[in-house]
Amino acid sequence: MSSSAGSRTSKKACAVCTKRKVKCDRQIPCSNCIRRGQESECIKAVTNDFIQNPELGSGKDSSLNILRLWQSYEYWISDIGLFKTKNIDITERLPSMEAQLAECSFWTDYIMLEDSFKLLNFAVENLGPLYFGSLGDISELFVQLETYWSRRQQFKETPDALLFSIDDYYWNSLLWAIFSMCVYYMPLDDISESFEVQPICEQLGIEENQQWSESLQLTLVQGFTKCSLHFLQQADYGRNPDVRFIQSFLILSTTNFQLSDCFLRDTLLAQCAHIARFFNIDSYKQLATDDESTDLSKEVFSKIWMSMCIQDYQQESPTKNNSFHKEIPSLLQHAAFYQDMPNFDIYKQEDSFESLCWKITSLERDLDRYLLTSFKPQIKTFDAIKRELSIFEKKIGNVNFEKKSINSQFEKFISTFLLSTIYWKLHKMYFIYFDTADSLQLSVHYLQLMVHLIETNMNHGLTFFNKHPLIIRSLSRMVPFYAFYNIFESNPQIEELNNDLGNLILALPILLGEKCVKLSYLVQRLNSMKIIWEKVRVEGTSSNWNHPVLKIIQDDIKIISRYCNRTLILVKGVPSFGDATDTINDETEENDKEYFARNKESSEFKFIVNEFEKQHSIISLFS
Amino acid sequence: MSSSAGSRTSKKACAVCTKRKVKCDRQIPCSNCIRRGQESECIKAVTNDFIQNPELGSGKDSSLNILRLWQSYEYWISDIGLFKTKNIDITERLPSMEAQLAECSFWTDYIMLEDSFKLLNFAVENLGPLYFGSLGDISELFVQLETYWSRRQQFKETPDALLFSIDDYYWNSLLWAIFSMCVYYMPLDDISESFEVQPICEQLGIEENQQWSESLQLTLVQGFTKCSLHFLQQADYGRNPDVRFIQSFLILSTTNFQLSDCFLRDTLLAQCAHIARFFNIDSYKQLATDDESTDLSKEVFSKIWMSMCIQDYQQESPTKNNSFHKEIPSLLQHAAFYQDMPNFDIYKQEDSFESLCWKITSLERDLDRYLLTSFKPQIKTFDAIKRELSIFEKKIGNVNFEKKSINSQFEKFISTFLLSTIYWKLHKMYFIYFDTADSLQLSVHYLQLMVHLIETNMNHGLTFFNKHPLIIRSLSRMVPFYAFYNIFESNPQIEELNNDLGNLILALPILLGEKCVKLSYLVQRLNSMKIIWEKVRVEGTSSNWNHPVLKIIQDDIKIISRYCNRTLILVKGVPSFGDATDTINDETEENDKEYFARNKESSEFKFIVNEFEKQHSIISLFS
Repeated sequence: MSSSAGSRTSKKACAVCTKRKVKCDRQIPCSNCIRRGQESECIKAVTNDFIQNPELGSGKDSSLNILRLWQSYEYWISDIGLFKTKNIDITERLPSMEAQLAECSFWTDYIMLEDSFKLLNFAVENLGPLYFGSLGDISELFVQLETYWSRRQQFKETPDALLFSIDDYYWNSLLWAIFSMCVYYMPLDDISESFEVQPICEQLGIEENQQWSESLQLTLVQGFTKCSLHFLQQADYGRNPDVRFIQSFLILSTTNFQLSDCFLRDTLLAQCAHIARFFNIDSYKQLATDDESTDLSKEVFSKIWMSMCIQDYQQESPTKNNSFHKEIPSLLQHAAFYQDMPNFDIYKQEDSFESLCWKITSLERDLDRYLLTSFKPQIKTFDAIKRELSIFEKKIGNVNFEKKSINSQFEKFISTFLLSTIYWKLHKMYFIYFDTADSLQLSVHYLQLMVHLIETNMNHGLTFFNKHPLIIRSLSRMVPFYAFYNIFESNPQIEELNNDLGNLILALPILLGEKCVKLSYLVQRLNSMKIIWEKVRVEGTSSNWNHPVLKIIQDDIKIISRYCNRTLILVKGVPSFGDATDTINDETEENDKEYFARNKESSEFKFIVNEFEKQHSIISLFS
Repeated sequence: MSSSAGSRTSKKACAVCTKRKVKCDRQIPCSNCIRRGQESECIKAVTNDFIQNPELGSGKDSSLNILRLWQSYEYWISDIGLFKTKNIDITERLPSMEAQLAECSFWTDYIMLEDSFKLLNFAVENLGPLYFGSLGDISELFVQLETYWSRRQQFKETPDALLFSIDDYYWNSLLWAIFSMCVYYMPLDDISESFEVQPICEQLGIEENQQWSESLQLTLVQGFTKCSLHFLQQADYGRNPDVRFIQSFLILSTTNFQLSDCFLRDTLLAQCAHIARFFNIDSYKQLATDDESTDLSKEVFSKIWMSMCIQDYQQESPTKNNSFHKEIPSLLQHAAFYQDMPNFDIYKQEDSFESLCWKITSLERDLDRYLLTSFKPQIKTFDAIKRELSIFEKKIGNVNFEKKSINSQFEKFISTFLLSTIYWKLHKMYFIYFDTADSLQLSVHYLQLMVHLIETNMNHGLTFFNKHPLIIRSLSRMVPFYAFYNIFESNPQIEELNNDLGNLILALPILLGEKCVKLSYLVQRLNSMKIIWEKVRVEGTSSNWNHPVLKIIQDDIKIISRYCNRTLILVKGVPSFGDATDTINDETEENDKEYFARNKESSEFKFIVNEFEKQHSIISLFS
């Protein structure tokens, strides 16, 4: 297997751009076509190219070639559609400020001094890797929790006379972010030992005689998160920059908050970046002239910045392009450099867990850039990434994890799971682009390794590890891939795997929220496509490639890419955003008429596509 | 006068970087030296270079050469220090949420239906150029104001049952932004006709038997602004993107809000950018395939984006580097292109007022990039900018301003004032770098032109034009320049000018806020330096160039650049920012010991510098 000029044959512009003689950016669909509303033609052209050009797939048959389309599908549907779209309904009624204040008062009254210390102890003993890095000194938290309670006491005595400072509010926020993280990860048994269920039911106005459930736990987490955000607001964060804003955000991001409102997350992350620049947190390079406290601070800053870059990369989308992670170049640019230094130990342990996670994530970035474009990567790039991954594998193996510490086990779980995710992506791409020997099997291997990690956690009473948002993020890329593959190929092993994975998703913690439900929907939708694929034969064409299922897949990509690139309409000065449903249905229909007219599909073909899209709307994925 | 290779002789690295053999970015002080705390040496080295190297000044004598230092001084002191620094005191007590709600209730109860329509009419008739561009349809505002009042009525009838929608809150915010703009620009007489003074005095707890004053008007403006921001908060803007957020921000930015809290402004602008990206407002390029409403919307978007770019450029600072205006390249890159097209009318009227303002501002950007570095510009760059400016001058002349419309007069005033500002900067720089014939006189000419514009407004009952933040921004660069020049050179004309300008600042509207006071302070401080310059002779040196005044100037630059680049110290996990005073005094003192030791200045020299810096602290400039 060597890289050759031939492996980049698809480096030509899309058919529409070629005809219009304009520069094409080779995205699928390309930016020009999106702007002109010609996504259908653009996607169609690329798809046909994959199918009809055996060269693209290094000589394999065209049924495998269609998998190239998965790359765009993974990007637009599994990543953007599932995690990074948002319907905005401006007619939504909002709770009054007073009601929001009252809700926060309820939660702050709900938690007792003793419980709060229990929570903090739980965090210190179990959740270290999630937040130690972004704080300077953990013991300070206990001091601040004491202060928090004396503030509360004072407030109870003289509620009217007492005004809190910016400093007070930021500490409140940081402590409540930690509380949120704790009640998110804490096993239900521990929750029910410390917290009463009855006041919550009373507050919610529901049946009071019930036991703790995962869904009540979710209410608890969401309530605590609201308090943390509320305190940030009270600190007037837009006016008063503070590093605890960033710390609170990073801590909340270790929970299902990372899976919630994508626009809010982007807003908060942008504010984090703004604060980080204000305090030069991104200038963490240590200098000989630094004094001890500067040195120590910069060490924390580097961890904060790495964690921010991970979030920034994960939140990237076509509608959020102020990314700062791009300032850190690819590891591959350094790889050759290090190899020329015989005395440099590339297997040396990483400086920090955060740096390890960022570096592995940066390799994911190197791979994922091929999702959006029709450029075929060079195989030597993949080989270089594989080499890097094996270095990190060895590094993780070298870390002396104390078996008994849960913090260590959690750290090992996260890094191994993250590493396996990238390995999986790598082999999936070896398979799609080069169909190299065993690449499909190797992808299955890494998936099974991750499933094994998840099951091991369950068997060792560490189920709470599985609540980490990384798990659902990774699975939402992997599981639909096999369902997609399963449409076109008959492979009993993959079929079985597909079934097992469907069950695995259903067994994931409810605390992960609606994303699990949506992921299930996506997978079932792909399974329904398989049925159509098998049942429907298109007459009058020599191959299967002008098939309703392919039209549906292309429509899915079109709808989501169009939604992200829509132009806001200001009619009569009224910003009328409409909701996603309106915008998309209208335009799609019109465009489809055009599409059908050009392609002369039968009315039966149209009927199948329309019925499926009506019954399995892709925009149900949106939050 | 032709550009020559010789005009770029100062393209070498600073002395410190040269010694350390590292790459120098030629900023004053350079980034490497800032990071290492060696700003003093760096500035000193550059200053000496200016003074001792007659080549740099094209053969003029070294007393003029020192003016090169003005460029850094203008950047760090007049721009960053005066407008873009902020002291953070985290121990500051904040008003409770309840108190904030009560304050907004007061203001929303204060304004009556009839008054609100008066305000809107005032805005439509007088303040058009400030906000027409960013809205789609002005008549819609009247419809929305009606709706606003019926909402208020409903709320009064059933205060508990009514919840407002996102849409409602955004309209509230936009309307209140317009109200703020109106009460800011409205002459005091008009204010006192519509509004009662007594309820405000009652609310503030001050003497109730008083007349309207500019300072009470300021209270009114600040109160209304708070309401507008409060409604944005209630719309939960971090979660619910909306173009009215941007519109409200742009409208508020036409008032003294632009001169207030710089961090808040940056936060809001970053959010504007975030929203603009989300709705693809930055993709305003019109396409043949666009329908009418898309076309219309994109026209508004282009104006919004231009206005945002102006704000973005004006708010740029070393601690805010997420600028998006940089995406639009310099006009100079297009200039040559247009000149080759004989049929292209470069004098054609601009598409919009916003586009005109942005393009002129972009030439300011081309000039101001020389403020920060010690690179000497090429004279042909200046000549190209002069050509562009004359094109815009003609364009403005071509606009058919209806004499009777106040909107037109305001538009003409803003564009002419803006253009003159850039002309002034250009001639100031011709003078500093090339000492070209009449360049000092020409700079004075443009300044006098601007003063004349200000006075004409006063004489024509249009004093409210002078409240535009552009006025104080421009003057704060120009006035200190002549005070600086006046230190080193005896020129009766400039001395007189300097006195006149001092009086002009004092006559500026009080509504412009504390910036006028700080600007006065800065000018008086420079005048005090002149006294030292004239009184003190340094013994034992052949020239005047090792003089306490030069040390003070260099210290000023050092203190502000260091403040912007400080490293936050996290001790024991406590983010202890300290306040600016602490950080700077500590470090400065230590560094000064070093400086004095190296430079063997006499104790008398030290005493003069220290006394001056004690009595005229530069950090008093900070907000």
